[in-house]
Amino acid sequence: MSKIFNSPSKYIQGPDELAKLGGYVDPLGTKALVINTPSGVKRVGAKVEAGFAEAKATPVYEDFNGECSENEVNRLVEVAKANGCDVIVGIGGGKTLDTAKATAYFMGCPVVICPTIASSDAPCSALSVLYTDDGQFDRYLFLPANPNIVLMDTTVIAASPVRLTVSGMGDALATYFEAQATHDADGATCAGGKGGLAALQLARLCYDTLMEDGVKAKVALEAGALTPAVEHIIEANTLLSGIGFESSGLAAAHAIHNGLTLLPECHGMYHGEKVAFGTLAQLVLANASTEQLEEVLGFCIEVGLPVTLGELGVEEVTREKAMIVAKAACAPDDTMGNMPFDVTPEMVADAILGADALGHYYLD
Amino acid sequence: MSKIFNSPSKYIQGPDELAKLGGYVDPLGTKALVINTPSGVKRVGAKVEAGFAEAKATPVYEDFNGECSENEVNRLVEVAKANGCDVIVGIGGGKTLDTAKATAYFMGCPVVICPTIASSDAPCSALSVLYTDDGQFDRYLFLPANPNIVLMDTTVIAASPVRLTVSGMGDALATYFEAQATHDADGATCAGGKGGLAALQLARLCYDTLMEDGVKAKVALEAGALTPAVEHIIEANTLLSGIGFESSGLAAAHAIHNGLTLLPECHGMYHGEKVAFGTLAQLVLANASTEQLEEVLGFCIEVGLPVTLGELGVEEVTREKAMIVAKAACAPDDTMGNMPFDVTPEMVADAILGADALGHYYLD
Amino acid sequence: MSKIFNSPSKYIQGPDELAKLGGYVDPLGTKALVINTPSGVKRVGAKVEAGFAEAKATPVYEDFNGECSENEVNRLVEVAKANGCDVIVGIGGGKTLDTAKATAYFMGCPVVICPTIASSDAPCSALSVLYTDDGQFDRYLFLPANPNIVLMDTTVIAASPVRLTVSGMGDALATYFEAQATHDADGATCAGGKGGLAALQLARLCYDTLMEDGVKAKVALEAGALTPAVEHIIEANTLLSGIGFESSGLAAAHAIHNGLTLLPECHGMYHGEKVAFGTLAQLVLANASTEQLEEVLGFCIEVGLPVTLGELGVEEVTREKAMIVAKAACAPDDTMGNMPFDVTPEMVADAILGADALGHYYLD
Amino acid sequence: MSKIFNSPSKYIQGPDELAKLGGYVDPLGTKALVINTPSGVKRVGAKVEAGFAEAKATPVYEDFNGECSENEVNRLVEVAKANGCDVIVGIGGGKTLDTAKATAYFMGCPVVICPTIASSDAPCSALSVLYTDDGQFDRYLFLPANPNIVLMDTTVIAASPVRLTVSGMGDALATYFEAQATHDADGATCAGGKGGLAALQLARLCYDTLMEDGVKAKVALEAGALTPAVEHIIEANTLLSGIGFESSGLAAAHAIHNGLTLLPECHGMYHGEKVAFGTLAQLVLANASTEQLEEVLGFCIEVGLPVTLGELGVEEVTREKAMIVAKAACAPDDTMGNMPFDVTPEMVADAILGADALGHYYLD
Ligand SMILES: [Zn+2]
Ligand SMILES: [Zn+2]
Ligand SMILES: [Zn+2]
Ligand SMILES: [Zn+2]
Repeated sequence: MSKIFNSPSKYIQGPDELAKLGGYVDPLGTKALVINTPSGVKRVGAKVEAGFAEAKATPVYEDFNGECSENEVNRLVEVAKANGCDVIVGIGGGKTLDTAKATAYFMGCPVVICPTIASSDAPCSALSVLYTDDGQFDRYLFLPANPNIVLMDTTVIAASPVRLTVSGMGDALATYFEAQATHDADGATCAGGKGGLAALQLARLCYDTLMEDGVKAKVALEAGALTPAVEHIIEANTLLSGIGFESSGLAAAHAIHNGLTLLPECHGMYHGEKVAFGTLAQLVLANASTEQLEEVLGFCIEVGLPVTLGELGVEEVTREKAMIVAKAACAPDDTMGNMPFDVTPEMVADAILGADALGHYYLD
Repeated sequence: MSKIFNSPSKYIQGPDELAKLGGYVDPLGTKALVINTPSGVKRVGAKVEAGFAEAKATPVYEDFNGECSENEVNRLVEVAKANGCDVIVGIGGGKTLDTAKATAYFMGCPVVICPTIASSDAPCSALSVLYTDDGQFDRYLFLPANPNIVLMDTTVIAASPVRLTVSGMGDALATYFEAQATHDADGATCAGGKGGLAALQLARLCYDTLMEDGVKAKVALEAGALTPAVEHIIEANTLLSGIGFESSGLAAAHAIHNGLTLLPECHGMYHGEKVAFGTLAQLVLANASTEQLEEVLGFCIEVGLPVTLGELGVEEVTREKAMIVAKAACAPDDTMGNMPFDVTPEMVADAILGADALGHYYLD
Repeated sequence: MSKIFNSPSKYIQGPDELAKLGGYVDPLGTKALVINTPSGVKRVGAKVEAGFAEAKATPVYEDFNGECSENEVNRLVEVAKANGCDVIVGIGGGKTLDTAKATAYFMGCPVVICPTIASSDAPCSALSVLYTDDGQFDRYLFLPANPNIVLMDTTVIAASPVRLTVSGMGDALATYFEAQATHDADGATCAGGKGGLAALQLARLCYDTLMEDGVKAKVALEAGALTPAVEHIIEANTLLSGIGFESSGLAAAHAIHNGLTLLPECHGMYHGEKVAFGTLAQLVLANASTEQLEEVLGFCIEVGLPVTLGELGVEEVTREKAMIVAKAACAPDDTMGNMPFDVTPEMVADAILGADALGHYYLD
Repeated sequence: MSKIFNSPSKYIQGPDELAKLGGYVDPLGTKALVINTPSGVKRVGAKVEAGFAEAKATPVYEDFNGECSENEVNRLVEVAKANGCDVIVGIGGGKTLDTAKATAYFMGCPVVICPTIASSDAPCSALSVLYTDDGQFDRYLFLPANPNIVLMDTTVIAASPVRLTVSGMGDALATYFEAQATHDADGATCAGGKGGLAALQLARLCYDTLMEDGVKAKVALEAGALTPAVEHIIEANTLLSGIGFESSGLAAAHAIHNGLTLLPECHGMYHGEKVAFGTLAQLVLANASTEQLEEVLGFCIEVGLPVTLGELGVEEVTREKAMIVAKAACAPDDTMGNMPFDVTPEMVADAILGADALGHYYLD
């Protein structure tokens, strides 16, 4: 099997970058459908408009209706066609961005992704998750290419809720461990091949950046300060984790995350928060060294990521609940198969309970 | 200034990958103009054809006339238009690939780059170098995006002349040192911004891979063996060095290379061979540690990269020749400005003479 | 640009050295104008007089009027001329010493500087700061040479208020970080050239001495004990930091200090206390490693240097105040340009707020 | 005893600095007696004159007669007086510079020292060695202050014979070992006190610089290249070793050097070459570790400093000759007393013979 490395064609990051959006769109098309939520327009609309004033490309602004559904995508495709748009821009969080990716796919035109939060590693990827109009999971839409541009306005992101960026650190925390596991298992990645040197190294850099700059960034963000550590964490959460997960593989941490979505108590938690606990469970499953466990636990506790099921909302922890999660995590089409040894649901349930116990041990 | 990370959208590497070319073209278009030299057709034509047999996309084969000139690009654009092609494929060495990139640019359609050698870091970049029909430098054509796909058939590359792959190691050798210098100087990169964490780390990985696998790969290649070390070196020469140089910056090594092209004695040497000596001169200019110098010198001598001007063909070394090179290297539009300190032509000439002397010292 | 290393011609340090002052003056002149404050005379007058008794040089004692102003300097020049003095001696704190330096400069004769505190790195430098008679900043007087002799009587200094010596540690704390930044930026120093190996190394030794002996000295000073650690800290605060700052460069820490003087809340704080916080802000601006940050924060907290704006007197911290400081710190004639990367006022404000937040985080 | 740190007031180093000499003289006086040898005038006269053209100070050029004798100094004092000179400039090697220092001392005016070689650490010091007119040692003239300016034109020095700069490395090689010995013995330094932190650290930096840059510089100098390593070695030989030896102490190495001057066979060797062997003998005397011995021996052999008495010209080595050297080295007014243990002539003779034997052992 070949080694495949996927990447957005261009990743741009810096303060007030949204003000230059128009200029970045110029080489891609002449008329841009700019998708944003009404609240997003309030936050960054003026900045975006000012930027287009100096560009050759013309913007067509359209509100996002709030759900990334086939109907919404179809509606936006019609808007794009009716306006003669030849490039799609999405501004906002996960659902807005996934909708923009899907709209561009069906239009066969380039897409520019402008996250206003750094809460997960989804922006850089070649994937949209579609829901029904009433919010149920519908299907994955695998795209033939990653976004043409991912544009991170770090001023905007630094002003977003701190918990969202911390959650992004939780998602990024899993990247290296899942990449290394996939490499050791000689497993396949979301990019459709094996991982190469590049993606695995970026996954490692992602982890090292979290350890070095995570706490500094959290402290700075709470003071409203856009320090270099914050810039580094935004790059780690988005680009490093984005390339890392897609081109070097997912394994137990995300599989356990997927299992955790079956517990109603966890529904209020962010993706990255559940992934952080999934990472801890993967480390227990693989019997990581005490040194490694303590580093990860210490990090999670310092930045405020959950290390127990209780912190994820599960007030009463039982083996039954752990088995529900574990069985789902071991579903054949999930990524548990990228662990470098045979895994049974019982092993996963024990790892979940063991991680929960370790979390309590270090919290106390 | 923002941080910008450029990348081919998809980098694919493995044995006999050219046989899958048709399948990789499918998501990008329905009719592919496949540009190749007559000799390239002999080497890989059957493999490519077989691969298209199973694909939905239809290939249109067209010979490359040997020079990457405006006339040739225009001719190919006409061929593409006449045949209704909506994706361009280039197979071969630097000039063929640059022609394919330029043709795709003027067609406004995707491009798939299939190098048959690993002699430089150009394949992944967003740049074509145009020449006149009789082979004189014409101009740089800066492209708005990197290739959609870069496809490395390692079986083909492992069968190419060893000196070409070693030359690619010379080009890759510079990447980390120029990246670090640019980072230290807070300089701009070819991608149009500052480097971020990701590209600098890939530049470092490029260097570490050369040190770890370079000699092993050279030995294997001479025996016609496609070992994992060869796979690593192909990735280092092409992807790691490609992203590394473009998104983390060039500095003295390439500037000195450019100066060396003014010496007629060097005309027979490959790009990467001159870059290797430029790297040594950059290390002397920056007063790299003895340990670092010895590592680089030892590597060059072991794999067969030049460490003296004599090995580059300059039989009589004079300060005057060094100054010709140095003055060109310090031209304002070259990349010497990415060194983290003020540099004068005199300093560069002294570094060139000093590098030459060191090379002799370690050769003896 | 050339490398320039400036130094007092002779730096002398030891217990009761003031008692030998006369002997040190002998080779420089025959009649010394000895400038001291009335309170200084009470503290060290008898010791100085006793020393001159055995010397060939004759002392002419003259009270300092309390302000280093052009009028005061002119007055002292007249006194010196009227008495036929051919060497000037200053005994006391910053203003007395600066007045002595300026008087000697206008007399064209040698100067002996005798600090009675170790609160800043000014004594060794070739600079006097002139004020108006009512205490407003007037101008910098750049001198062609550093003092002929700097004489540190460590018995006297050990008896001065501890907070003053701690403040000197705050000034000395910045030295290495500003020196390294200036070196990395290839910037110019106060000595009028580039730094060389010697000054950068003394800056490093200054930092290492603070880390090794700072807390020990603080504890000893509070007990009135002149231990070797106290001797080391006096040398670090005065000679090492003095040569270090002048010949290896200032950067963000002092620029931020200068900005902090615009906040009325900080007026009660000593120079070195503001510099200590400026150092912390520089470290955040440069994204120093967590290990480095923790070492500096731990040191400051242990010896009693401020790590938050609150400890500097700023009860209500706002981004507006941070921007006032930051804009002044980025003035073109200040030393922010010696940071090895482009710096904007916004970045500095974020670094100040980030440093304040980090300080609170580690204080709690 | 007090700690005393002596230094030239200003040390300036860089390419073509002699062309700026006039500007540097300006703040020190209006009429400069410029002392140079006839051959020195040929080498650098035009450069110096050009520089004075733009300065306010007027130069009075006077040839040096070749010997630093009381008569020559008196002659030059008369020339200076007759021309109304108020500043003295010496350009050249040791004797010219010592003559300039002595002339300035008797004139009571500032002195600017411009070495055209880097063969010893004498330029920065407060000492002149006087000879009789026919070249016999007369006496030491201890000066009250170090030079006002020491100006190193590295272009000129890099063009001087390589053996001279290597000899300077030999002189510099002793600095750290003698400084550390004096520190351990709590001995006195040439500056008239004890060493402090600063001078000892510069001595250490001197050694580290030789180890890192010595061989690189030698190789570059042989190729006529003024690389950064050459700049570093010039600073090490002159400033670092100059401050180091004067303010942190001499010990066995220079005492043994002084003894070696009694052997007629050594008269053709440079000061630094004899000091290098003296250093080796000191290491044997103090039973330095094998690691340390090998580092020093390896360095000497690589740069071409003598490690045996044979290389110093002593064809027949006998215990009698060693005792002649050893007895002189142990003279009470020499610096053997700065070794941190009791030393007898027998011990020194054995150390000399042992060093010679070790040198042979490593040479073979
Ligand atoms: Zn995730
Ligand atoms: Zn190249
Ligand atoms: Zn200060
Ligand atoms: Zn010597």
